[in-house]
Amino acid sequence: MSVPRGSTGKPPAEAPPLPHALLWEPLLRRALREDLGLAGDLTTDAIVPAGAAARARIVARAEGRVAGLSIAASAFRLLDPRVAIGPLRRDGDDAAAGETLAWVEGEARVLLSAERVCLNLLGRLCGIATATRALVRAIEGTGARIVCTRKTTPGLRALEKYAVRCGGGENHRFGLDDAVLIKDNHVAFAGGVRAAVERARAHAGHTVKIELEVDSLAQLEQALALGVDLVLLDNMKPATLRQAVALTAGRAVLEASGGITLDTARAIAESGVDLLSVGWITHSAPALDVAFDFAAGA
Amino acid sequence: MSVPRGSTGKPPAEAPPLPHALLWEPLLRRALREDLGLAGDLTTDAIVPAGAAARARIVARAEGRVAGLSIAASAFRLLDPRVAIGPLRRDGDDAAAGETLAWVEGEARVLLSAERVCLNLLGRLCGIATATRALVRAIEGTGARIVCTRKTTPGLRALEKYAVRCGGGENHRFGLDDAVLIKDNHVAFAGGVRAAVERARAHAGHTVKIELEVDSLAQLEQALALGVDLVLLDNMKPATLRQAVALTAGRAVLEASGGITLDTARAIAESGVDLLSVGWITHSAPALDVAFDFAAGA
Amino acid sequence: MSVPRGSTGKPPAEAPPLPHALLWEPLLRRALREDLGLAGDLTTDAIVPAGAAARARIVARAEGRVAGLSIAASAFRLLDPRVAIGPLRRDGDDAAAGETLAWVEGEARVLLSAERVCLNLLGRLCGIATATRALVRAIEGTGARIVCTRKTTPGLRALEKYAVRCGGGENHRFGLDDAVLIKDNHVAFAGGVRAAVERARAHAGHTVKIELEVDSLAQLEQALALGVDLVLLDNMKPATLRQAVALTAGRAVLEASGGITLDTARAIAESGVDLLSVGWITHSAPALDVAFDFAAGA
Amino acid sequence: MSVPRGSTGKPPAEAPPLPHALLWEPLLRRALREDLGLAGDLTTDAIVPAGAAARARIVARAEGRVAGLSIAASAFRLLDPRVAIGPLRRDGDDAAAGETLAWVEGEARVLLSAERVCLNLLGRLCGIATATRALVRAIEGTGARIVCTRKTTPGLRALEKYAVRCGGGENHRFGLDDAVLIKDNHVAFAGGVRAAVERARAHAGHTVKIELEVDSLAQLEQALALGVDLVLLDNMKPATLRQAVALTAGRAVLEASGGITLDTARAIAESGVDLLSVGWITHSAPALDVAFDFAAGA
Amino acid sequence: MSVPRGSTGKPPAEAPPLPHALLWEPLLRRALREDLGLAGDLTTDAIVPAGAAARARIVARAEGRVAGLSIAASAFRLLDPRVAIGPLRRDGDDAAAGETLAWVEGEARVLLSAERVCLNLLGRLCGIATATRALVRAIEGTGARIVCTRKTTPGLRALEKYAVRCGGGENHRFGLDDAVLIKDNHVAFAGGVRAAVERARAHAGHTVKIELEVDSLAQLEQALALGVDLVLLDNMKPATLRQAVALTAGRAVLEASGGITLDTARAIAESGVDLLSVGWITHSAPALDVAFDFAAGA
Amino acid sequence: MSVPRGSTGKPPAEAPPLPHALLWEPLLRRALREDLGLAGDLTTDAIVPAGAAARARIVARAEGRVAGLSIAASAFRLLDPRVAIGPLRRDGDDAAAGETLAWVEGEARVLLSAERVCLNLLGRLCGIATATRALVRAIEGTGARIVCTRKTTPGLRALEKYAVRCGGGENHRFGLDDAVLIKDNHVAFAGGVRAAVERARAHAGHTVKIELEVDSLAQLEQALALGVDLVLLDNMKPATLRQAVALTAGRAVLEASGGITLDTARAIAESGVDLLSVGWITHSAPALDVAFDFAAGA
Repeated sequence: MSVPRGSTGKPPAEAPPLPHALLWEPLLRRALREDLGLAGDLTTDAIVPAGAAARARIVARAEGRVAGLSIAASAFRLLDPRVAIGPLRRDGDDAAAGETLAWVEGEARVLLSAERVCLNLLGRLCGIATATRALVRAIEGTGARIVCTRKTTPGLRALEKYAVRCGGGENHRFGLDDAVLIKDNHVAFAGGVRAAVERARAHAGHTVKIELEVDSLAQLEQALALGVDLVLLDNMKPATLRQAVALTAGRAVLEASGGITLDTARAIAESGVDLLSVGWITHSAPALDVAFDFAAGA
Repeated sequence: MSVPRGSTGKPPAEAPPLPHALLWEPLLRRALREDLGLAGDLTTDAIVPAGAAARARIVARAEGRVAGLSIAASAFRLLDPRVAIGPLRRDGDDAAAGETLAWVEGEARVLLSAERVCLNLLGRLCGIATATRALVRAIEGTGARIVCTRKTTPGLRALEKYAVRCGGGENHRFGLDDAVLIKDNHVAFAGGVRAAVERARAHAGHTVKIELEVDSLAQLEQALALGVDLVLLDNMKPATLRQAVALTAGRAVLEASGGITLDTARAIAESGVDLLSVGWITHSAPALDVAFDFAAGA
Repeated sequence: MSVPRGSTGKPPAEAPPLPHALLWEPLLRRALREDLGLAGDLTTDAIVPAGAAARARIVARAEGRVAGLSIAASAFRLLDPRVAIGPLRRDGDDAAAGETLAWVEGEARVLLSAERVCLNLLGRLCGIATATRALVRAIEGTGARIVCTRKTTPGLRALEKYAVRCGGGENHRFGLDDAVLIKDNHVAFAGGVRAAVERARAHAGHTVKIELEVDSLAQLEQALALGVDLVLLDNMKPATLRQAVALTAGRAVLEASGGITLDTARAIAESGVDLLSVGWITHSAPALDVAFDFAAGA
Repeated sequence: MSVPRGSTGKPPAEAPPLPHALLWEPLLRRALREDLGLAGDLTTDAIVPAGAAARARIVARAEGRVAGLSIAASAFRLLDPRVAIGPLRRDGDDAAAGETLAWVEGEARVLLSAERVCLNLLGRLCGIATATRALVRAIEGTGARIVCTRKTTPGLRALEKYAVRCGGGENHRFGLDDAVLIKDNHVAFAGGVRAAVERARAHAGHTVKIELEVDSLAQLEQALALGVDLVLLDNMKPATLRQAVALTAGRAVLEASGGITLDTARAIAESGVDLLSVGWITHSAPALDVAFDFAAGA
Repeated sequence: MSVPRGSTGKPPAEAPPLPHALLWEPLLRRALREDLGLAGDLTTDAIVPAGAAARARIVARAEGRVAGLSIAASAFRLLDPRVAIGPLRRDGDDAAAGETLAWVEGEARVLLSAERVCLNLLGRLCGIATATRALVRAIEGTGARIVCTRKTTPGLRALEKYAVRCGGGENHRFGLDDAVLIKDNHVAFAGGVRAAVERARAHAGHTVKIELEVDSLAQLEQALALGVDLVLLDNMKPATLRQAVALTAGRAVLEASGGITLDTARAIAESGVDLLSVGWITHSAPALDVAFDFAAGA
Repeated sequence: MSVPRGSTGKPPAEAPPLPHALLWEPLLRRALREDLGLAGDLTTDAIVPAGAAARARIVARAEGRVAGLSIAASAFRLLDPRVAIGPLRRDGDDAAAGETLAWVEGEARVLLSAERVCLNLLGRLCGIATATRALVRAIEGTGARIVCTRKTTPGLRALEKYAVRCGGGENHRFGLDDAVLIKDNHVAFAGGVRAAVERARAHAGHTVKIELEVDSLAQLEQALALGVDLVLLDNMKPATLRQAVALTAGRAVLEASGGITLDTARAIAESGVDLLSVGWITHSAPALDVAFDFAAGA
């Protein structure tokens, strides 16, 4: 296979390209409106004097991988563009428990009112990156890579896929529109694997890769004979995966899927497959514990 | 305390009132557009014949509490209003592993193209309800209740809070706008607890309750003297909580917060506090494994 | 009652906290698009030279209370961020007839094209503040306070409630979601007052206050027995209100509603009730006459 | 003048064409979201049983002109399309105090939750129609007509202008984009009336009428010499208006503006001007008192 | 006719007033989101180093009339406000093949990612302006003017009408809402031309002009007798148009429509009609070839 | 090459899958609002009686390929869901001049008010399909296929790409996010072709194909050596293209680009390349002339 190898779970040499603000500012605005309602922050507006300035630190309370720091921190600036933000760590970095990730400075009311929106997003994205990193480390040195799925939160896909990249993982399809993935149901409707692949090849654009899900070596042989670009090996044991790798002999990219946990990942990766596809890093990763500490004297 | 007691984690006698479609249809539309992109479902459009009909079951692959079933299933109808949906279980029910939650019937292309959006939302909401239920069960019989926080996913707060209700829990504030919660930072800016409470009382509307976060019995005494409606007891051990309950003697609703896990919950609840406030049931609950099975012969 | 007293209709010591721009900029953008249509300002674009600079004053043509000045004036900056705005008066101030409220300086075309959108909003908000102030003054010294209702213009609730605060009034519920208010119809559906209050207490969150509407002293006694937080006394004469106050003896906040005009307000307030709830200050207050005067030599 | 005459304040033979739903449904959805917040109608959801049916009447509590009945009532159907609405009166009708305007039938929860949004809009639109009708009646028989201005509520212009038509009035410009109206400031920037009119004529499209504001008979003569289509006579006394009419001799449509009240309107109209332009019917008309009465036995 | 004459296809003395950004920024944001999808610019993000600066020229590859340059170029600034744009030519200028229209300077990634959105819009608008200019030149000296129609691209009407003005043409109606145009179908529903015109006159506002479409001289006589403001002469030969002009004798503005090409325009214009109404300049003008050239050494 | 061959310009056996309504209804709503403005259809509302029914035909005035018929016709149903639409021809069909494409039946006002929005979209999409078909026919039998580019109208990409499919063409990338296309500027920033391809391969997902633009046979050799999936041959003459095909010997998909017209297409296709990439079928195709004819007796 000519597919590049070598992701290691180490901090990437450079942070992954940040999604354009155009793609996530509407999400943050919605989140701010959701939290402020019509009446705004009753507590802060009642208690904190207008114009009082404050400085606060965004802190990681647990060890983890940073993801989405500048995105989440922009919640403050969407409420008030005069807020200054000084990131200390960049996305893709590892942060120790207790480490300061960024400083935020501005009107105290603004800092208090946008704090939760910032932390909710940051905790989720760092959680995904941290979960991904754990898997990437688990398979380090095997040459296999971790990829995520379309099992993402409604409205957050671009950001959650970005968090996976911050964790050292890679992205599978962003949507139903950017690659063909033929599953058992498609095969059933087409009346067979051959028909399904041929219809896909005839109708999908020439810029589109075709992947086929198989659950047996027999089906894998058929897939290889049909010349698909990628094969998803569904729920196979490491021993079967090894046979699949041998059988394929580089004729397609092989992706293992199903039952991949921190415990099982290494054995699966050592089978020689190219990719381990994992849903839980996006749909079930616990949030990283991040907090907001006002500076003494604030 | 006149506060009603008795949530038990049993299926509620009636399902919680469903949020109005007006509030969540835009979220589902965004999720569908996110998944379909501009080009739509390349695989399905290429392979599945136009007009082919299909019937599929939404299935719980693991045991759990149902939440958001009709909301998530409406993804199919937003893509094609002719899809018929027959829910077998209602929100708030417990479902066994392997149980069918609902049937969906319509054009096969539509079922395949909206499947992931439906499952992504359903898995998350059932996951939250299931986590909530576990906590509710852990404290069953103590008279305490489980409440959630504002630690929710951007854009999904109304639905995640609904899932908590499906799990037998209750909701704390929906936003910064519907109750006053005075935390340490507010107190610092006000220059003291008394000033903070007085400012809140002077400025917040008469329809608004006032809650104060305290981290010592001394502060609790001060809170009670100031006559706040609710007190949040931050990170106190069960023994301290018991003292707090005794000290309060019904003069305020008491809410324990911090360090509440399935292991610690019961001891905390047995202290006699009214509420246990838990963030992880919304921000870190693993998704329930839900799947979509096409009927034989589809 | 521990409820704070003493609003007097005097300019507040500090202006009420301004709603975040995030909450009202979409409204102003819609208003500008509504006025400009597709073709823009035909008159100005035809007649006023591109690049011509101008300076204009926003003037109160009648005496009144200022509300929403910086919000309304931001219409100019939404059309062209280079416009400079210098407010002379702040929200909550009283302005004499003929007084200049603010200066606006920028390209003449921009000033002329956004003038009407600015004035339409400003006139309405100042009108509400001025009407509220009149009522606040009418009851000055009685210890009662003026509160508004949900009878607001579609899409303007947050701003109209803010204008009430600028007038020295206070806000009742911002929506159906932030307090329980049990009216006769709810009681009818519940099958009685007791059932209604119990259901509300069982289902509403612990952060939510419960108010009950009553129209007789007998009902008031029942309400007090049930321990509701607030009682709305519907359409009672001052004499009856006095009896209600005596009967209540501080056990609940009392709110008079119905038939409150500038003429009747004082007698009602002198009954000793805590609050006078008035719909017409938002739904029927005449706009304050505000105008836009170009500086000589412009 | 060939301009048609004869509006009389009588109910129009047919109701004015209803604005398309596409233009006002977004406004109603925003109003519903504004009132329901994230948590929905706490009171109703707690107290009123799911599935309970109800029937209610929309009632005019005061005499007035109906406007926007089906538009406002659609609030119920936007919350639940199964609600049935039976209008008894049509827009443009006069309704007596106590008259039922429409019946609404459906789930009780829906009726209670959308009631206020419906009434807020209906009260405002009927208020505008009723105020307009009063002016139309005041000038009945004079041949003059009442027209409204651009002094409308942000976001409601199309509906408020429709309410004016329901009241027997007519509409002036809907926005800056559909006719030229040259005011004193435009003249100042152009360096004179002639230059202003010539620039307007040279640049505005051939489908666009040109109106000039004048405040003296000398300016009127200049306007007529320049051949403008319409002349706005600003703040002239009836005697001067009569001279203006004589001077004009049908060469332009004449529109009186400024100081037009129910008391002054007739004298102004009797001057022979074609139109009376009035801002307060949209910006300062008190809402009509409309209510929602649940049927006995509901 | 008092209608101004004299458009010549020469560059206008000053560029037409630019539509406000408020009206077209949402279109550009949609276009950027359409092109970037969820994953962003895969090629650029992979290959071009973060932070690399670049300078590029927007170049006309073919001779044509410039339109929408600053609007289209704002695509870069919507992606990144730090991009600097230096326009060399203004809208309404003629540009030679190979001429540089503007410089764009900023982060290379931004320039590459927004390039296509900018060029797609610019090419279309310049194409419309160039087609319009050709027609304007074809009739130069005849005194007639070119006007566009409502045959525009969904969502782009304001910009396409602006491009027509940049080409030296003028605009007919911007929508169904800004003038009356009575066509044969309207006449059929009204039961005759007289009834149609009278209904229009009775119902349309006094600020609205009335145009009638006719397809014979007999109908034209009827239109003139009814005193309409504008007459659309549908599909008449030049000889007939000349008769129409003579018959009209300045009593109405005459607009020829149908079959107007670069070949036929002059003969039609020489008939003496005031306006030539042409749909294809907006719906079928080929895009001008515009390109984006990175500076050497970038 | 295993790439499927054989598109012929004949009507496809089945129409291409229609984009989901969710993706284009917002566009149609915007177009309707654009045309109706705030005041609606002045002409129709004044003249056509409320409730009058009508039946009309959508007619092709010129011969062409149908595309987007049901999408464009849905404009009527978005204005009034009671309108009935009976399509006679389906997308992908060829229609003769004068042929009826569909019947539309409903309230006359609705038909007249939505007519232009329907026709504007339909004319554009049929125009693109017809242009595409012409190219497809021009190369019939050569085995090459026509593909479109990202040179589409802002906001219409999904529909314009669909129209290309209706014309027998295929789609290249839908956006920057679904394949890598390395152009000269990317190569320059990377410091060479090899570096660019390697960076793309390292960073783009495994589901993404990589295309390289080359303008010489030497570059083609380099591309083939690097194993890219697709090669874009920029502006090569047929003779050079033939050499490129021979050189490639099936190792990559070859796509010719630049200078492809109806005159040159066949010679280019006969070179043996797989694809001809053409921008003008989307950015410069003239609209097909489509019209709306009311039935006699309407």
